[in-house]
Amino acid sequence: MTIELNGGHYIQGRWHQSGEHFHRMAAASNQALPEPFYDANDTDVDAAVTAAEAAFWLYQQKSAAERAELLDTMAEELLADGAEIVAMAMLESALPQARLQGELGRTCNQLRLFAAALRDPMEPVIVDRAQPERTPLPKPDMRLGQLPLGPVAVFGASNFPLAFSTPGGDTASALAAGCSVVVKGHPAHPGTSELCTRAIARAIEKCDMPQGLFSLLQGHNPGLSTALVSHGAIKAIGFTGSLKVGRILADCCAARAEPIPFYGELGSINPQLLLPGMLEAHAEQLAQNQVTAMLLGQGQFCTNPGLLLAIKGPGLERFIATASNALAEQGAGAMLTAGIANAYRQGVESLLPQLELLAQGQAIAASHQTRPTLAKVSGKALLANPALRQEIFGPFALLAVCDSADELLNVISALEGQLSASVHGLEEELADFGPHIQRLAFKVGRLIFNQAPTGVEVCHAMQHGGPYPASTDSRSTSVGSGAMKRFLRPICYQNMPQALLPEPLKDGNPMIWAR
Amino acid sequence: MTIELNGGHYIQGRWHQSGEHFHRMAAASNQALPEPFYDANDTDVDAAVTAAEAAFWLYQQKSAAERAELLDTMAEELLADGAEIVAMAMLESALPQARLQGELGRTCNQLRLFAAALRDPMEPVIVDRAQPERTPLPKPDMRLGQLPLGPVAVFGASNFPLAFSTPGGDTASALAAGCSVVVKGHPAHPGTSELCTRAIARAIEKCDMPQGLFSLLQGHNPGLSTALVSHGAIKAIGFTGSLKVGRILADCCAARAEPIPFYGELGSINPQLLLPGMLEAHAEQLAQNQVTAMLLGQGQFCTNPGLLLAIKGPGLERFIATASNALAEQGAGAMLTAGIANAYRQGVESLLPQLELLAQGQAIAASHQTRPTLAKVSGKALLANPALRQEIFGPFALLAVCDSADELLNVISALEGQLSASVHGLEEELADFGPHIQRLAFKVGRLIFNQAPTGVEVCHAMQHGGPYPASTDSRSTSVGSGAMKRFLRPICYQNMPQALLPEPLKDGNPMIWAR
Repeated sequence: MTIELNGGHYIQGRWHQSGEHFHRMAAASNQALPEPFYDANDTDVDAAVTAAEAAFWLYQQKSAAERAELLDTMAEELLADGAEIVAMAMLESALPQARLQGELGRTCNQLRLFAAALRDPMEPVIVDRAQPERTPLPKPDMRLGQLPLGPVAVFGASNFPLAFSTPGGDTASALAAGCSVVVKGHPAHPGTSELCTRAIARAIEKCDMPQGLFSLLQGHNPGLSTALVSHGAIKAIGFTGSLKVGRILADCCAARAEPIPFYGELGSINPQLLLPGMLEAHAEQLAQNQVTAMLLGQGQFCTNPGLLLAIKGPGLERFIATASNALAEQGAGAMLTAGIANAYRQGVESLLPQLELLAQGQAIAASHQTRPTLAKVSGKALLANPALRQEIFGPFALLAVCDSADELLNVISALEGQLSASVHGLEEELADFGPHIQRLAFKVGRLIFNQAPTGVEVCHAMQHGGPYPASTDSRSTSVGSGAMKRFLRPICYQNMPQALLPEPLKDGNPMIWAR
Repeated sequence: MTIELNGGHYIQGRWHQSGEHFHRMAAASNQALPEPFYDANDTDVDAAVTAAEAAFWLYQQKSAAERAELLDTMAEELLADGAEIVAMAMLESALPQARLQGELGRTCNQLRLFAAALRDPMEPVIVDRAQPERTPLPKPDMRLGQLPLGPVAVFGASNFPLAFSTPGGDTASALAAGCSVVVKGHPAHPGTSELCTRAIARAIEKCDMPQGLFSLLQGHNPGLSTALVSHGAIKAIGFTGSLKVGRILADCCAARAEPIPFYGELGSINPQLLLPGMLEAHAEQLAQNQVTAMLLGQGQFCTNPGLLLAIKGPGLERFIATASNALAEQGAGAMLTAGIANAYRQGVESLLPQLELLAQGQAIAASHQTRPTLAKVSGKALLANPALRQEIFGPFALLAVCDSADELLNVISALEGQLSASVHGLEEELADFGPHIQRLAFKVGRLIFNQAPTGVEVCHAMQHGGPYPASTDSRSTSVGSGAMKRFLRPICYQNMPQALLPEPLKDGNPMIWAR
C-alpha cells in the first residue's frame, strides 16, 4: 500500500512543514526512507503550546461523559486506520505484525479503559458536611474535587510506537484528566505518529472538541525536547525513554521558574527471583519461560527480565543447561534503531570480561541487529560492582548466583528501583523467603508471582512505575486507570453553593463518601 | 514554672549534646534566653537517619491499628504535658496563650484524624480479579496496595510551633503512612520542640515501637538542612517555610543521585475577591472581617488574606473607609522572630512608594514588632508589576481596585499559585462572575465562599497546598487525612498468594472495589 505523508507538525488543526528535515530509517534494513520529516523549532513549540493552552480552557469545561466519548471515538478512528498504522509501524520499528496488531488493540483498550473509568469512577468523592452548631467554631461544608493540571507534553517512546507513543497511555490519561496534549513524536517512527494523529484529529472533529487539544511536533533535535519541557504554559510531562535523556529533561523541569511534574519511565532490569524449590521442581519449564520473556520484541520491553537471582544448587544447574540451549537457538534480530543496537553491543562487550558467558544466539548479519546473550556472575561480584546492575536494553540477561539465602538478601537490598520483579517459587517455600520478598517489594512498582513481567495488563489495579530510576515518580503509574491521577490535582471547595459545584460534588451523587 | 531543658538532639531514644551551641530569643522581648541549644552536625544527621532507617524496616510491618494506637497515644502524651508545652511556645513565639492552646488541640486532633483514617479508610482497595479463561491470554489477579516511602525528614515551621512543627501535620502523616521521621526543629522554638519530643518519645515507648522511629535534630546552621535533604536514606521531605529556603532545599532534592519528593509550602497571599453586590450590601461587616483575618497571629498565618481584589464603586468606598478605621486601631505586635519583623519592614518600605497608603496601625515600640498596614493600588499597576503580587509575611494587605470586570479577570489570570482564595459575593451575583471564579479555582488549592481563609479545618476533604509557589507539589496536601498519601506509593501485587497479601488486600475486606 502507498501512504502519502505530510512530514510536518500538526498544530491547531493543520499540518505545518517547517525547519530542517530529516529522514527516518526502515528498521529491518536500516535504509533511509525518501519522505522528509521536519524538525520542529522554537516557533513551532510555542505555536503548539499556545494552541494547547487556549484549547485547555475550553476542554476542561467538558463533562466526564464528553471526555469519555472523545476517548472512545479515538479508539474507533485508530482501528479504522488500523491496517495502515500497523504497516507503517512495522516499516519503522521492525516489530512483527502480530505484535503491532496486539499493541494497537491494547492502545484502544487503554483509551476505552479511561472512558470506562470516567463513566464509572473507582474512588469516592470526599465530603465533610457542615456542622453549623459545632463549638467553638462552626464546621464549614468541605468537598474535595479534582482539577486538570493544564497542557501536558508527551514524549513518545521508540519501543512501543503505539501504546507508549503518540496515541499511547500518557496521551490517553492526560485527555481523560481534562488536559490538552502536545506530543513530541519519536523520530524513529514519525510516519506512525502522523497516521495516529490523523485518526485523533478526526475524533476531535467528530466530538466537536477544540482544535488545539492535540498537537504533534516531529523532530530529532534535542533542543526541541528542552524547549518543550521549559515552556511556561506546559504543566506536566509524560516521558518514556532512556535514563540519560530522561534525567536531562527531569532536571530541566526541576530548574524551571515554576517546576512541574516530570513523569519519566527510565529503565528497569526487572529481577527474577528463582527460588530453590521451584528450580528443583520445574527448572526446565522455568528456563524456557525466561528465555521466551527476555526475547520478546528482541528484548526491547521496559519489563524485560534482565537479571535472574538464584542460590547455587542442582536445580539451578539444570536451569542453566536448559536456558543456555534455548538461548543458543535464538536468532539475531533487527533493533528499533541502529543506535539501540550499537548501545547494546557496547554494553555487552564492556561487561562480558567480568562475566561468565553461558550462551549466545546466532551471530548478527548487520550492525543494526543484536545477538541474544545470557551470562552468569557470582552474587559477590554483583554486589561489588554497580555497573553489573545497570540495564542493557535488548536481549541480554544476567544470572547472579548466590552462595546463600543471606547473600541473596544482600543482593536484593543493593538493587536500584525497578518497574517490576517476579518471584518464582513453590507456595510452600515462600514463607522461608519472606524477608527477600518483602525487600523486593520495596524495590518495585509491581511484584509478580510465578509469571513473567512482560505482560503489562491494562486494568484498574496496575502500577507501572517504581522507585527511581525505574520511574522519576514512584507515586504515579503510566498504565491503568490510575494513570489519570498524574495529570490531576485536588482542590477543596469550602462552602461553595450547590449550583456552582462541579457535577460530581453535588449532593445526590451516590459516590459521595461523607463524614 | 521552671522547665529543665537538655538542649541536645534526640536520636535512637537518647539525648545527645554535640557541636556548637546557639541561644534562642524570648520572642516578646527579643532577649536571648540562657539555656544553650546545640547545632547538629553531619555526624548527628547520619546517626539520626541511620536510626530512622533501621526503625523503618520494623515499623512498616506494624498494622494500621498499631499505627493508629501510636498516634492516639502521642496525642494523649502531648496533652498530658500541655501546660508546659503551651508556656514554652508562648515564651518562644510571642503567640497568645489561647491561640497556642487551640493549636495544641488542633495538633492532637490531627493525630487522631489520621488514627481514625487508618481504622476507617476513605478509599477502596482496587482489585482486578483473575480471568483464567480469557483469550488470547488469561488475566492475572491484580491488587493495588500502598507502601511507605521510607524515612522522612520534616522541617518545623516558625509560625505554628505545634501544628506545623515537631509534632505537626507532616510528622503525623508520615507516621500514619508507616514512615519513620527525622525532625529538623525550628531554631526559633527549640524548647517547644524538645518538650514535644519528650511526649512523642513516651508514646513510642508505651506502644513498644522502635526507638529510632522519631528523631529531633536542633540547629540553626543551613548546612544541617542541606545535609539532611541530601542523605541517601531519606526518601521524602515535608517543609513549611519561605520561598527562598524552600526552593534551595527543593533544588537539593531534585539534584540528588536519587531525586526524592519535596513537599514544600512556600507562601501565599490568599486573594480575596470582593464582589460588587456583597460590597453594596455588607461593606462594613466585610471590612471588619477582613481586618480581623489579616491580623490573626500578627499576620503570620500561611492563609493570611494579603490581597483584596475588587471593582471600583460606592460599596468599595465604604469598605475602604471601615477597613481603614478598623486597621488604624490595631496595635503593633512582636513577631515570631526579629528577622521576620525586619523582612516585613523592608518589604512594606520597598512597596509603599508605589502604593496609596490607606491606614496603618499603631507605631512599633521595638524593632522586632510590626505595624499593620493596608494599602491600595490600581488593577493596572498590579498587572504591570509582579513585585506587588509577592507575599509580605505579616499584617499587610493590599487592595487592588480594578476599573472593570474584564480587568479583574486579567488580574486573577496574572496571579501565581495560592494556598487558598475566598469569593465574597451574594448568591445571585456569582453566576455573573463565573469566569472569574473558575480562573481563581485554577490558582488555588482551596476555594472558599464568604469566609476568611485563615481557619484551616482538619478534616477529610481539606486540601492545603496549591500551585507553585504556594506549594512545590499541588497534587499533595499537608493538612487533612489525605496528607498520608504524600508518604505512600502504590504497588501492584500480581498473582500473589492470599497468605502473603497485606491484610487489607485479602479477600473478605469489604473495602475492596473489584472488577
